[in-house]
Amino acid sequence: MPSTAPQAGVLPHGFLDELLHHRLLIATGVAGVYGRSGEFEDTVERIDRAMAGIGAPDNPEVMRFPPVLNRAHFERSGYLKSFPHLAGTIHSFGGDEQAHRALLQAVDDGGSWDAGFPAAPIVLTPAACYPVYPALTGLLPEGGRMVDVMSYCFRHEPSNDPARMQMFRMHEHVRLGEAETVVSWRHRWVLRAESFAAALGLEAERQVATDPFFGRGGKLLAVNQRDQGLKLEIVVPIASTNAPTAIISLNYHQDHFAELFDIRTADGGIAHTACVGFGLERIALAVYRRHGLARAEWPSSVRGTLGL
Amino acid sequence: MPSTAPQAGVLPHGFLDELLHHRLLIATGVAGVYGRSGEFEDTVERIDRAMAGIGAPDNPEVMRFPPVLNRAHFERSGYLKSFPHLAGTIHSFGGDEQAHRALLQAVDDGGSWDAGFPAAPIVLTPAACYPVYPALTGLLPEGGRMVDVMSYCFRHEPSNDPARMQMFRMHEHVRLGEAETVVSWRHRWVLRAESFAAALGLEAERQVATDPFFGRGGKLLAVNQRDQGLKLEIVVPIASTNAPTAIISLNYHQDHFAELFDIRTADGGIAHTACVGFGLERIALAVYRRHGLARAEWPSSVRGTLGL
Repeated sequence: MPSTAPQAGVLPHGFLDELLHHRLLIATGVAGVYGRSGEFEDTVERIDRAMAGIGAPDNPEVMRFPPVLNRAHFERSGYLKSFPHLAGTIHSFGGDEQAHRALLQAVDDGGSWDAGFPAAPIVLTPAACYPVYPALTGLLPEGGRMVDVMSYCFRHEPSNDPARMQMFRMHEHVRLGEAETVVSWRHRWVLRAESFAAALGLEAERQVATDPFFGRGGKLLAVNQRDQGLKLEIVVPIASTNAPTAIISLNYHQDHFAELFDIRTADGGIAHTACVGFGLERIALAVYRRHGLARAEWPSSVRGTLGL
Repeated sequence: MPSTAPQAGVLPHGFLDELLHHRLLIATGVAGVYGRSGEFEDTVERIDRAMAGIGAPDNPEVMRFPPVLNRAHFERSGYLKSFPHLAGTIHSFGGDEQAHRALLQAVDDGGSWDAGFPAAPIVLTPAACYPVYPALTGLLPEGGRMVDVMSYCFRHEPSNDPARMQMFRMHEHVRLGEAETVVSWRHRWVLRAESFAAALGLEAERQVATDPFFGRGGKLLAVNQRDQGLKLEIVVPIASTNAPTAIISLNYHQDHFAELFDIRTADGGIAHTACVGFGLERIALAVYRRHGLARAEWPSSVRGTLGL
């Protein structure tokens, strides 16, 4: 999960304004929620295909989930403990015709109309890999599993930094198996991620990073995460050169998710898991930022990587 | 918007069980929310490309939105008046560390934890075209506009009918302009939609249909909609042969959306709009239902249409 720490030295909305002015993004009136033009979407899809190509030799199992998660799985995942401020829950109307009249009156009055909308048994997906773990409860085959998963994800962090969207796509590969298998798999993806960023002509750096844990208790979790090197990020300048943005995140979960969802290796032990997540819109924005908004004028090596 | 009337003669979950057993869909523990296997997703994408090919000669403007809508635009759209029971609102945590402790205690106790989650300024997208109208407030160019839009959509209708998903993708073309332009455009798409269904070997029928309006007042709206032929559907057997399911919906909105979002023709009058929506998962399910779960054995004409 790319870090969401406050950004020092953010450019004053300049890049977002440019993107909107060139109609690469389309304003919706909500900070961090944008439409995409045909060209921007095409760039995102080309990045997605190029990224899928890197992982193809592994022949991972492809799974796709809609951008919602079973609320019971979400509770069990521990997300509310660490990141309550980023979560999005889904609510739906359960009322009769009388409640409906009250609802419409509240809308007409410009008032709050939450009351008629209790929680539904789903929440917005916080990271593409979250639906994978509950789907794999049980024994893994010999050698473990590899899963390729992609979806829109939600983070409640309204911002004018275009790289800090509330709804964005994350393409992840997930590895489940013995600890050594998982660790060496992540190392291979670190090298792949660095090559990928280089092929796009990005000035990328690798960092040991931390998740944006909530509250004072979260500080301790972050220190522990950093000390153990559990989270690595590939960062590049997008909204700011001082505080570059994570475009790829490589996370070793140890036995966190496997314990919660009872995922076991072939010999019956609790599995370890890791994931590598590519932030598709962030990568696209990094490329536009680095090479300019005129796609036709990008360096030929970059255009080649994207099949342009 | 495909109809959501109760289904007579629904097969007792047989088709859903088959799809899960063959791992084309993946259970999540929530009715109407499924993961998709690599093959199912590939079939959906091939249907999407074939459908895009039909509209390509029109050279529509492509827009893509994440599956959420500005809550103010949602209020203005009138959706809550007609379809409150299908809506999904998004809520997020706004509390401090004390509220966080109370939240975690409620989760631990297995209780309700909605209280800490007030409404966020976004809702789930009910139909792919909803974000398009607020983005086009103002004057249309001479001849109007055509927009190609696709996204995941939400309908709160938990069901064991696999064709009645709560989260599914809808690919739409939208026409905005003079009434006559819009009406003749919809007629052209009726013919295209019928050819498309035939190319997939589906036993499709065209119907004058109605939206699933809420409550007793909704019955009148439905009668009016049917009398004016505002909603046409291409229906095929999926979960039931008695009550076939809409896979494509062609809707003439008259000046409903243009009035609400102040979209005007080049001469300053209120525009008219229409949309044609292809339910991508429903079309895929219809093809699996018609030709069997072994994709390699589908008729060569169908495989040809999908580039298989």
